[in-house]
Amino acid sequence: MAEQSLSVFKTTSYQEKPFDHELSFGRTFTDHMFLMDYSEESGWHDARITPYQPLQIDPAAMVFHYAQSVFEGLKAYRSPEGDPLLFRPKQNLARLNQSNDRLCIPQVDEDFLLEALKQLIHIEQDWIPHTEGMSLYIRPTIISTQSFLGVAPSTNYKLIIILSPVGAYYKEGINPVKIAVENEYVRAVRGGTGEAKTGGNYAASLKAQETAGKDGYAQVLWLDGVEKRYIEEVGSMNVFFKIGNEVVTPRLNGSILNGITRDSAMQLLRHWGYDVVERDITIDELYDHYQQGDVKEAFGSGTAAAISPIGQLDWGENKMVFNNGETGYLARNLYDTLMGIQYGQQYDPFNWVVNVNQPVQSHVS
Amino acid sequence: MAEQSLSVFKTTSYQEKPFDHELSFGRTFTDHMFLMDYSEESGWHDARITPYQPLQIDPAAMVFHYAQSVFEGLKAYRSPEGDPLLFRPKQNLARLNQSNDRLCIPQVDEDFLLEALKQLIHIEQDWIPHTEGMSLYIRPTIISTQSFLGVAPSTNYKLIIILSPVGAYYKEGINPVKIAVENEYVRAVRGGTGEAKTGGNYAASLKAQETAGKDGYAQVLWLDGVEKRYIEEVGSMNVFFKIGNEVVTPRLNGSILNGITRDSAMQLLRHWGYDVVERDITIDELYDHYQQGDVKEAFGSGTAAAISPIGQLDWGENKMVFNNGETGYLARNLYDTLMGIQYGQQYDPFNWVVNVNQPVQSHVS
Repeated sequence: MAEQSLSVFKTTSYQEKPFDHELSFGRTFTDHMFLMDYSEESGWHDARITPYQPLQIDPAAMVFHYAQSVFEGLKAYRSPEGDPLLFRPKQNLARLNQSNDRLCIPQVDEDFLLEALKQLIHIEQDWIPHTEGMSLYIRPTIISTQSFLGVAPSTNYKLIIILSPVGAYYKEGINPVKIAVENEYVRAVRGGTGEAKTGGNYAASLKAQETAGKDGYAQVLWLDGVEKRYIEEVGSMNVFFKIGNEVVTPRLNGSILNGITRDSAMQLLRHWGYDVVERDITIDELYDHYQQGDVKEAFGSGTAAAISPIGQLDWGENKMVFNNGETGYLARNLYDTLMGIQYGQQYDPFNWVVNVNQPVQSHVS
Repeated sequence: MAEQSLSVFKTTSYQEKPFDHELSFGRTFTDHMFLMDYSEESGWHDARITPYQPLQIDPAAMVFHYAQSVFEGLKAYRSPEGDPLLFRPKQNLARLNQSNDRLCIPQVDEDFLLEALKQLIHIEQDWIPHTEGMSLYIRPTIISTQSFLGVAPSTNYKLIIILSPVGAYYKEGINPVKIAVENEYVRAVRGGTGEAKTGGNYAASLKAQETAGKDGYAQVLWLDGVEKRYIEEVGSMNVFFKIGNEVVTPRLNGSILNGITRDSAMQLLRHWGYDVVERDITIDELYDHYQQGDVKEAFGSGTAAAISPIGQLDWGENKMVFNNGETGYLARNLYDTLMGIQYGQQYDPFNWVVNVNQPVQSHVS
């Protein structure tokens, strides 16, 4: 696979780009996309950048029936010099292959895919918004395309990378959100697919989100599927609590996504001297700490929103308000620092940022 | 929706139909398919029978990313008089709407869809194989088609019905299969999507099936996601055990599919005077009964295979061989009776069969 080549077919009809202030999240797509096909005979092949266009997919394609698919999410940011910057893209591609393994999808060549992604971003760099806080969202997806109605791993796949210039994920910005603890529905369970970034986890989450939304909540806090006590994730983000002098986040137990923003937040917090503890934590324990006045802050972490402070967490009748419902010190500092690094405005102590316009270097991660 | 109309666009290039002996499961598709679209403005609309053809789907369509999709499976059988027969189709359409509810997909008009399905089968009836045991598999699927990368229910959907003439699901016919109890992976959990017929459940099952397949097993027996003790399903079938004089099948606990063949088997068994008990049953309890010599038979039930006898069930080091590894009395009788009714060769005591060529009657179900 290493010697694979990348063909580029440019569009002949460029779209007019929207103004930055017109952008919301994930509704506008750029002029080009990346495609690559897999067959048992040829492996991954025919890597190409093409005009953005509908896919022609057989109605019997397995992805429509058995949801054998994985995806990733990352962003390109515009530096003060105008260069497109990627944030820890190797981590996303490594996680893509971890998801592939769980979903019986063949591994991709991460180095080749990173180079292809960089070339795609290079071609589409004018699509990266200039406004602070905005970026170009990158969505790699692998779908199973064999026309077969038996339940088995597909023999054919398509890898797609599409790009979407985005405003803030939450229109309200980094204002704290109100969250409900979900007691009925479950997102994932140990032995399931919770650690993989696969469509089924998100489909399973819709009903709870819809119900919570009607009750005025921005997201739900997921508990574990076994005992319904252990805190797992919030919406589609990892979650952190500052309890006393420690920052606590649920450990990676197999049903939690191994978030790259989660890892980046932990590294920054430790760099700043905080005790960060990855461990099991129940909702009961959190509530006990809350009643004792020990829970200073709560926030979610994820690529789409970066850091999302939690102002209020309702667990049935028990209401928890963190930091008077305002954005806390840690959430604010993590948000500002992540943004500063991602946009190339601030020193990058961990060598996280990859400049698409610069020659390849080796990156720590 | 009741006054919705159905347009028919016939193909101009009919395929040459394969010989029955060339058919396997789910790889050949007929000349036409049914399509219907949903939008928030128009509801379900534009119902049409069209030539079978690839779908044009935007790469940002939500089904590729968040697996918001549901499906059904049923079959058309050829009667001795040559008429196309459907087996309990109203049950499938009712279950489709139950799955829709769990996946936040808008409800469909079951009566309209049944009439559309009958018209599709009427047009494609020459595709129903003449060979005994073969049939025309019917796959209704709903996919989410909004081009949007946010995690939320789609605003647009496409309902597709495709048809596939099929041989036996298991090439070896009604021979008993060897099954492994799955101890690591989990298919579904209470509060999850196990009761819905949605792609994510099947994607989650692939890894375990692949691993078991390498070890020489046809399928896995799934245990519950909470305690990993309660028997749930076998592969993508419901499961029955004859223990002493009772026939035991796991109760519908929210993570088990409400199988139509399961219900039909229960009705037939009760009609024949057997005690059928729907209850929780652990793998430990089953093994205890087995050691006492009380487990007379084990079999799976599902649309694809109808009845699939289990010859051997391996639970780690504990091997259970049922009925000397041969097809048991109940499995054989259920299989023969279901086939007899489905193919219109036998008295249909429950009025299950719908003759597509006859005017609409009211059916019990």
